Amino acid sequence: MPENIGFIGLGVMGKPMAGHLIKAGHHLTVHNRSRGAVDELVASGAVAATSPAEVARASSLVITMLPDTPDVERVLTGADGVLAGLQKGTIVIDMSSISPVVTERLAMLVADHGGSMLDAPVSGGEIGAINAQLSIMVGGDEAAFHRAKPILDAMGNPEKVIHIGRSGAGQICKVCNQIAIGGALAGVSEAFALAKKAGVDAARVRQALLGGFAASRVLEVHGERMLVDNYKPGFRARLYQKDMRLANEAAAANGVSMPANAVVAQLLNALIASGGGDLDYAALGTVLLKMANG
Amino acid sequence: MPENIGFIGLGVMGKPMAGHLIKAGHHLTVHNRSRGAVDELVASGAVAATSPAEVARASSLVITMLPDTPDVERVLTGADGVLAGLQKGTIVIDMSSISPVVTERLAMLVADHGGSMLDAPVSGGEIGAINAQLSIMVGGDEAAFHRAKPILDAMGNPEKVIHIGRSGAGQICKVCNQIAIGGALAGVSEAFALAKKAGVDAARVRQALLGGFAASRVLEVHGERMLVDNYKPGFRARLYQKDMRLANEAAAANGVSMPANAVVAQLLNALIASGGGDLDYAALGTVLLKMANG
Repeated sequence: MPENIGFIGLGVMGKPMAGHLIKAGHHLTVHNRSRGAVDELVASGAVAATSPAEVARASSLVITMLPDTPDVERVLTGADGVLAGLQKGTIVIDMSSISPVVTERLAMLVADHGGSMLDAPVSGGEIGAINAQLSIMVGGDEAAFHRAKPILDAMGNPEKVIHIGRSGAGQICKVCNQIAIGGALAGVSEAFALAKKAGVDAARVRQALLGGFAASRVLEVHGERMLVDNYKPGFRARLYQKDMRLANEAAAANGVSMPANAVVAQLLNALIASGGGDLDYAALGTVLLKMANG
Repeated sequence: MPENIGFIGLGVMGKPMAGHLIKAGHHLTVHNRSRGAVDELVASGAVAATSPAEVARASSLVITMLPDTPDVERVLTGADGVLAGLQKGTIVIDMSSISPVVTERLAMLVADHGGSMLDAPVSGGEIGAINAQLSIMVGGDEAAFHRAKPILDAMGNPEKVIHIGRSGAGQICKVCNQIAIGGALAGVSEAFALAKKAGVDAARVRQALLGGFAASRVLEVHGERMLVDNYKPGFRARLYQKDMRLANEAAAANGVSMPANAVVAQLLNALIASGGGDLDYAALGTVLLKMANG
């Protein structure tokens, strides 16, 4: 059944995601700070709105896909924000990766305005967005999740659109994802640094490790990047730095200590400090080699 | 073709490994500090020797499977050690997980005595040993590797019996394996600690993460252990502590800094200090929860 969907934030991820919704037959009202992506989507059948409030007035589901926490706060609660135009019963689906703590607060505000909010951050990157193969981790009310599921399925792999729990649980899950990846990435980086400095063929080490308990997607994909020293992104180090900030914030807010993640965050800071912010985050391993070479 | 193989060290790993060689039709001469395992293998057709030197005199390949570096040093270079009885052209295959640095020195000694040494540490644990499904990472001379390959294949998965490089490269690879696992384990532990403290269902987090870039054998297997809080080993924390010591030694010897691994080693020290040495090493995550709960 075609729905009236609002989409705010048409960046590298948001634009293809919105495109899939149009292809699926929905009526889209879109808004974006810069005009180019809006024009492209209008050419495909979307309607342009001049503010988030105008998007909300035209929609029964409003999707946001924005860079960081303050962007989502502004778009939702600003003067001409989504809340200013929110229709009763509207579901706000924030697909950005932002603070779990702020997410819970925003969800309460949306509820105060008669709507319901889902946090639905994604993983899978630009490629996943283009191929509608994203993993989507959803927090919020179960009824809202079921209502939104077919819409989310159009942008992701339906088997990987998962209801994690209460409001904020999707963002917690996304943070957990980045934390787990960080540990694996540090482990592979250190293993390869040792192999290289010991004069042992890292390609054979990777092959041997993939056959056993050390096997991981990180070893497979980022391990390959490290072997050929190709750090064309992929996922930029400076975006991962944002995720590490969210991880540390979540740890502090929930009373957890994450010492390995702290090391990952510091190695990442070193990578970015030395000019690597626009490299793929697999370049983390180069920091160890830099540290070790005189 | 049946070979005369010596086997020294018939512990939880060594005993089933030696058993596979007997089943494959080889003539085994065995030696072990305690008598029980020797008697079992003799009942299966092996011959018992009273010293490592006697093993060496009867064998053209001598396998050692011992707990730690000093054990291998003693068995090879001691008064009645393997070197004292070594036949010209014998291949010594050390399948223990020991110091890569000491391995290189021992390999030179074996060469001085007219033999050739391979380092061939394994991964896959007791189950892998029993099922002849070990991964075997081999360092040393290529000709010796090809000579030993059919013997190693009888104890492991032939596709996972890999020649990594020069003498010591097998031990370096094994250390790399444990380092990569350590990073992944710390990442999963921290992710689950956050999920639990945030009141988010860690089982759903695991399910979501397995579908994406955070997917790993560690998340799959150890993640499951963490969910059900079952730390029956598996691989004991105190054995992993030994591997972390080897990793740190290799890092120092090869001029590498491994900050994430240092965190893993310290968490492991905390686990063992609090009485968890005989738990599966996946219990690492419990340290974080202990740290976080008042």
